[in-house]
Amino acid sequence: MNNIEKIKSMIRDIPDFPKKGILFKDITTALKDADTLKITIDEFYDIFKDEKIDYIAGIESRGFIYGMPLAYKLNCGFIPIRKPNKLPAEVISQEYELEYGKDKIEIHKDALKKDDRVLIVDDLLATGGTAAAAVKLISQVATPVGIAFLIELKGLGGREKIKEDIKIVSLVKY
Amino acid sequence: MNNIEKIKSMIRDIPDFPKKGILFKDITTALKDADTLKITIDEFYDIFKDEKIDYIAGIESRGFIYGMPLAYKLNCGFIPIRKPNKLPAEVISQEYELEYGKDKIEIHKDALKKDDRVLIVDDLLATGGTAAAAVKLISQVATPVGIAFLIELKGLGGREKIKEDIKIVSLVKY
Repeated sequence: MNNIEKIKSMIRDIPDFPKKGILFKDITTALKDADTLKITIDEFYDIFKDEKIDYIAGIESRGFIYGMPLAYKLNCGFIPIRKPNKLPAEVISQEYELEYGKDKIEIHKDALKKDDRVLIVDDLLATGGTAAAAVKLISQVATPVGIAFLIELKGLGGREKIKEDIKIVSLVKY
Repeated sequence: MNNIEKIKSMIRDIPDFPKKGILFKDITTALKDADTLKITIDEFYDIFKDEKIDYIAGIESRGFIYGMPLAYKLNCGFIPIRKPNKLPAEVISQEYELEYGKDKIEIHKDALKKDDRVLIVDDLLATGGTAAAAVKLISQVATPVGIAFLIELKGLGGREKIKEDIKIVSLVKY
């Protein structure tokens, strides 16, 4: 079993969460296992170590989980992308569509400069609404070079929603 | 300037957040700086490296930020302590008092066993409600050996609220 197969084997399916008919991919079993945690971060590191990343931007809250150890390993800074009203200083924000209504995500206005090379991290690429918004948000003030996910659910059009020419990486695909 | 003074110098004060009269300790400036991020995790690591930690339990969501790189560095597993209805499988929970009303935190029921040595991580120790609840929550199913914070606001009684005989560590004190 290679590293990716090992990681995949540690992700658990939970039926009917958060609502009936959804098969939820539970990453807590992959986080609990020390070896799996380590190889997951090392796989991300190997993919991005030569990309001259200045900052990891992690999307609240599971993007914090994978983004922070990767920032530590890459020896770069970390920028939290948060839901509204969580960041204390002046923010810039990006709206995106939900199934019903809209939501937005924010970063601190003074967090980044135009030439900063930023890698966005989240746990899951599904329909891609949050991911596309995160790339647009970072593009407002800096240079997104990639977006990395632990899991990609193919066939939901998430990857196609990201229009910018950046590296889109997912370790485990379903 | 030693490491702790360096970390402290990178934490920013934001007045009147989240409400008037509160001086908020903003950690985003300490996360953005690659050197500060690195020495913060390394300081935690040095304190706990000989404590035979099996799992880091990080409290949502800023406990994820410091807990995950520490789990990576200690080569142990990570357990998310989450707000209600976020975890997909069966949970155990612990209630705690808020200024007005109650809240609770949860972990997966199958996450830990009695002899597992667990280090709890969060960003801030203030009045200690969440921290004390997290220690009780972990005590229900495993062995808490310590709780670590980036910041401790002294004089708010947080440390005294934790009754269990565990190591209570904060890197930066105000």
